Amino acid sequence: MRRRLWTLEEFPFHPEKLNHYETLFTIGNGYLATRGTFEEDFDGSMATTMVHGVFNHAQGVLVPELVNSFNWLPIHITIDGTPFQLINQNDTTPNPPGGAVLGYRRTLDLYRGVLLREVLFRAESGAIVRLSFERFVSLHDYHVLAQHIQLVAVDGNPEIEVESFIDPHVTNAGAQHWTDITTDYDDARVSVIAKTNQSGYTLGMASHLVAPGKVETVMDTANQRPVTRTSFTLRTEETADVYKFISVFTNRDVSPVALPGKLFDKLDSALGSGYDGLLQAHEAEWAAYWDTSDIQIEGDDTSQFALRFVTYHILIAAPRHDDDVSVGAKTLSGLGYKGHVFWDTELFIVPPLTLTQPRLARNLLMYRYHRLAGARHKAQANGYEGAMFPWESTDTGEETTPQWSDPQPDGHRIRIWTGDSEQHISTDIAYSLLQYWHWTGDHDFLIRYGAEIVLDTAVFWGSRVEHKNGRYEISQQIGPDEYHENIDNSIFTNRMVVWHLNEALKLLDWLNANAPADAKRLIQALDLTPARLDKWRDIIANMFIPFDEKQQIHIQFPGFFEMEFIPVPHYEPRTLSVQAILGHYRSIQTQVIKQADVVMLMALLGEELAPRDVLLNNFNTYYPRTDHGSSLSPAMHAWVASQLGLDEIAYEMFEHAGAIDLHDNKGNVRDGIHGAASGGLFQALLFGFCGLRLGENGPEVTPRLPEHWKSVSFTVYYRGEKRRIRVTNPVAVVPTA
Amino acid sequence: MRRRLWTLEEFPFHPEKLNHYETLFTIGNGYLATRGTFEEDFDGSMATTMVHGVFNHAQGVLVPELVNSFNWLPIHITIDGTPFQLINQNDTTPNPPGGAVLGYRRTLDLYRGVLLREVLFRAESGAIVRLSFERFVSLHDYHVLAQHIQLVAVDGNPEIEVESFIDPHVTNAGAQHWTDITTDYDDARVSVIAKTNQSGYTLGMASHLVAPGKVETVMDTANQRPVTRTSFTLRTEETADVYKFISVFTNRDVSPVALPGKLFDKLDSALGSGYDGLLQAHEAEWAAYWDTSDIQIEGDDTSQFALRFVTYHILIAAPRHDDDVSVGAKTLSGLGYKGHVFWDTELFIVPPLTLTQPRLARNLLMYRYHRLAGARHKAQANGYEGAMFPWESTDTGEETTPQWSDPQPDGHRIRIWTGDSEQHISTDIAYSLLQYWHWTGDHDFLIRYGAEIVLDTAVFWGSRVEHKNGRYEISQQIGPDEYHENIDNSIFTNRMVVWHLNEALKLLDWLNANAPADAKRLIQALDLTPARLDKWRDIIANMFIPFDEKQQIHIQFPGFFEMEFIPVPHYEPRTLSVQAILGHYRSIQTQVIKQADVVMLMALLGEELAPRDVLLNNFNTYYPRTDHGSSLSPAMHAWVASQLGLDEIAYEMFEHAGAIDLHDNKGNVRDGIHGAASGGLFQALLFGFCGLRLGENGPEVTPRLPEHWKSVSFTVYYRGEKRRIRVTNPVAVVPTA
Repeated sequence: MRRRLWTLEEFPFHPEKLNHYETLFTIGNGYLATRGTFEEDFDGSMATTMVHGVFNHAQGVLVPELVNSFNWLPIHITIDGTPFQLINQNDTTPNPPGGAVLGYRRTLDLYRGVLLREVLFRAESGAIVRLSFERFVSLHDYHVLAQHIQLVAVDGNPEIEVESFIDPHVTNAGAQHWTDITTDYDDARVSVIAKTNQSGYTLGMASHLVAPGKVETVMDTANQRPVTRTSFTLRTEETADVYKFISVFTNRDVSPVALPGKLFDKLDSALGSGYDGLLQAHEAEWAAYWDTSDIQIEGDDTSQFALRFVTYHILIAAPRHDDDVSVGAKTLSGLGYKGHVFWDTELFIVPPLTLTQPRLARNLLMYRYHRLAGARHKAQANGYEGAMFPWESTDTGEETTPQWSDPQPDGHRIRIWTGDSEQHISTDIAYSLLQYWHWTGDHDFLIRYGAEIVLDTAVFWGSRVEHKNGRYEISQQIGPDEYHENIDNSIFTNRMVVWHLNEALKLLDWLNANAPADAKRLIQALDLTPARLDKWRDIIANMFIPFDEKQQIHIQFPGFFEMEFIPVPHYEPRTLSVQAILGHYRSIQTQVIKQADVVMLMALLGEELAPRDVLLNNFNTYYPRTDHGSSLSPAMHAWVASQLGLDEIAYEMFEHAGAIDLHDNKGNVRDGIHGAASGGLFQALLFGFCGLRLGENGPEVTPRLPEHWKSVSFTVYYRGEKRRIRVTNPVAVVPTA
Repeated sequence: MRRRLWTLEEFPFHPEKLNHYETLFTIGNGYLATRGTFEEDFDGSMATTMVHGVFNHAQGVLVPELVNSFNWLPIHITIDGTPFQLINQNDTTPNPPGGAVLGYRRTLDLYRGVLLREVLFRAESGAIVRLSFERFVSLHDYHVLAQHIQLVAVDGNPEIEVESFIDPHVTNAGAQHWTDITTDYDDARVSVIAKTNQSGYTLGMASHLVAPGKVETVMDTANQRPVTRTSFTLRTEETADVYKFISVFTNRDVSPVALPGKLFDKLDSALGSGYDGLLQAHEAEWAAYWDTSDIQIEGDDTSQFALRFVTYHILIAAPRHDDDVSVGAKTLSGLGYKGHVFWDTELFIVPPLTLTQPRLARNLLMYRYHRLAGARHKAQANGYEGAMFPWESTDTGEETTPQWSDPQPDGHRIRIWTGDSEQHISTDIAYSLLQYWHWTGDHDFLIRYGAEIVLDTAVFWGSRVEHKNGRYEISQQIGPDEYHENIDNSIFTNRMVVWHLNEALKLLDWLNANAPADAKRLIQALDLTPARLDKWRDIIANMFIPFDEKQQIHIQFPGFFEMEFIPVPHYEPRTLSVQAILGHYRSIQTQVIKQADVVMLMALLGEELAPRDVLLNNFNTYYPRTDHGSSLSPAMHAWVASQLGLDEIAYEMFEHAGAIDLHDNKGNVRDGIHGAASGGLFQALLFGFCGLRLGENGPEVTPRLPEHWKSVSFTVYYRGEKRRIRVTNPVAVVPTA
């Protein structure tokens, strides 16, 4: 039976949502992910498999991008000569040319990480065949992918032909990344190996087809590829099973010389386990994931499903066995933002993993450690000291934010300033890292890797601030509210820098006390002289924090309230950002805010920022000015509103956040899952509604659940131990194990 | 705040679902209903208002149909010269010709019976206006309809023009029903009166517009209609309110001579109450409806909403003040089935009303009483005695089933036999009527009206049965399974006739004991001689009930199992009926069943039909042969499966039934709500999952709730008293008041 509130379903086929659903139905295992495209061709589909870490800078593209890897899915089936395809849905005329789809259901079982598509198809001959396509990418052995197609002859005695291949002729929306494609084949097997044309990564995939009939591989000369094929007859009510096993390696896993051998060895072991064996091991890993990552909500099915959906998408993207890659803003589920890593990862995606899968959080933080060289290079190139992380990051660790947008409808490009000016990323990384440390108590990580990041980014800020007007200022910034570019004294940045330097000093004290040798090593390596630390203290004391004493509110940046006021709520029920409605050039001269900025600061610092009264003033000031032009915004508002007792707004924002991908509110899910919105939803629930925080003796909660919710049950790791917590409405907190 | 699980929402605009949503967003008050079409024109929309009882037989149409009445909705708004319309959704180019829709949300508040549409619109001038359109048809005063449009100038200082009119130039998909259209107007008022061209019903509507500016009515000569209009300027952030009050009467309410005066009197009183006053009285009536009609399900939001949705649609269609009309198969929400009344009403729609709104159930049953003449006419015309109700019924009470279908894709028409052969309708009415009597104890109704129906339809059956082969048989029937036409000895019909005659005899005994004068009157009037009653007893004893002793199953009709077997489950996940897949002519020669037939019999008679073992055998035999080609089927299966302990099937069928209109599974919701499926869902929940039945001392339950449900709370009337019942999972039954 279908697992209730664990299943994403498409019924019947919705071709108008093709690309949206391809994103939603993505499967992955933290090594790679594959969009929910079909085994057969379908016009307009965006077949995409992305393997972590395989970046390439193609000709004609402004910046490097995560490469669309070979398409391993193709299995083309012909029934009495009619190619199976999603055509003529519900056409009941007796013999429509091309056949007809008479039934269709697609389900993604989030609990098991298994995608199933069932189709009832009538061939031109009149034969009716029921096809079911099941696939998974093994969470147990991440080099193994598997497909199972079952065919039942429902009416007639059709002749079935099956063709399987691996397609390396894929692009990133036209950009060519692959070169030196070589293929090999033998009986039921095919292998394809190729290199990226600039970065020189090698990728190999091999497949083995198990099917009735005489399975053989031949060269399809027209398409220049080896094709494994077979044919057989099905009598009425007979069933046939077709299995395709795929192995995949890159030169990040194994040397290019050894790669072909590894591909075939892995196929042998997969065949040895068999489809059911592989599936069983895969399911066991998923069950272990959900044991700690599942949040159970009683009393709100929509929220329950939304939570599981976002958690699934974080889990399939988070690398398990690799600490040298990270999760891009669109996860691995689409080409949007080119697979680049933003602050989205540290402030939105890492915290849920810190709480429920700390090993995965550590991998993501280590990715930054391995890129300190790039961060130092960026600091140096900009005339600063220490480590200045790039706004957009890839494999190299260098800044990869494009300087220009894609052409706008009128043909002109817009200058993108975030790579220059959105500098808070370095502090976001420190925040996430220290949060990880506090929850996990992973001193080993901190001492060997993390401290260096926190301290060297502090060094950067020490060199970055400007001493003028008798105080410290930071000019030319972009805060989370990216509608206002290159402003001076963004409160988000200024205040977080104070927080950062303060934490850096506390960290040094802790190291001196608990790991003196490492403290010494770092002081020396990063040149943490007493004079430098004194300057940090001076900055902490004298940083300019824009504040309106009369109104008792923080000011997003000086001058903000002098701009045109636009009452954003009056633009409801808009389906666009107010920026899109008013146009770029007008909106940047108004008080319209793209996303939580001061509100985000409140989420991160809570009452450390200001007393509750001021926080409430802030929220009431900025909320009606925010158009949530970024998907990151609603969840942060839900979190903060809940903690401030603004229950209606909190729930509305929570619902908004939960619908971003499932309902495609922004119309861009085709380009991939909104990873930050996903992690944000998770945090809004735990840090917002449940009021989860780390107290002296471990996790504490001050719940404020939506009125109609009955309870929330979740698990968090605290210093290596699982803590199971259940909060109920009316409030009661029950540690359940 | 939006009422949770009470609100149907469309966000943003889904033009591809235009007609589907027009049906879902229908509002009504039991006197008339109006589809959710827009105030402005939209290509392809099916503007429909239907007033109960107004039938007409137009030229070129095979049978009479419920008439599409005047469209009272039109309010055309122009903003800086740009006509407001749903155009260029999300077009952000600065000045798209025709303007652009930048936001859209539509909500139907089921609790209050209020439809709201909010739109953000940019005129060609660049001015942005937020429009909200609210409407309701008063449940308090059913001759009053009201609209409130609010406009806010969000950006710019637009010049607003408003035009309002009533449109009598409407058709039923091309069929012309109205003639003698006369209009009158004065200041802010317009009235339109017309007659149906065959049946001679008179309909009048009048409107009064309240709006800023100089409101005046002028003749629009191009369109030959009076138009009420005004214009005014809105400055940025200014709000304008426009109200349209509509009154409506037919010559069924008032004599044609008095009608114009009544229209204006009613407008005066509506204006006196004001929009808010009218709305308040309307909401109070709705609250009273929901007090007894709302079923609360804890633990399943989808089912909860589905229940409220179907209950809403039954309530808006059920006549409150009129016992001479009934609810058609598609309620008042679409033109499907021409507003005709089928068995759907008595076996699907009446029972929920019997339980929760007995006054409305009585109205529907009285409709049949008033049509005994038609039923007697049909019996006589066919050579039988007593009363033989028509398969399809309108105002006249005569048989109005068309004999031929609309042309099929290949141009030919199919002969429709249901009007000739689906004779079980007479017994269905008796069943519903006696169920009403048992629950309500409404002896007055029974004695004065109901008994005559039960007895005279029994007289019909006494004359209808055929004595051959030493037993009673009934040839040339169609049972609920309409795929098998003109078969002999349909078990549904034969067995229900036995039940019917038995109940008739019991009823006569009851009348003799409790209302001897009326018993005498009826015996005389209906000629219930001892010989006739003896024959009934003989029929009861000797009716042929097809049964397979070896398999211990009932046989749908002799010969059924000799036809080709088609394993219906193998056709999943079909989106079509198996009949549509195999084609009419092949499928009727197979064992594929359109809908619950033997299973329906089991729902109606329970263990009165057979011991539980046989019922289980029956279900297991017929379920895999049923393709649910009728929307009536899944709910009946849910009911019976639940009572037989087949929990998985029960819930699957329940979900299926709940999605029929909301998800448009059958692709025909454009033609109206599936009224029987709606009432069926309600019954599946109460009679199935809750096991509700009438015991010696009142309502009893034997609940078997779906695993994940926490509880079900509902109210039923028993002999005039409200009984509030709550069943929980695990099982506990709590009378809550």
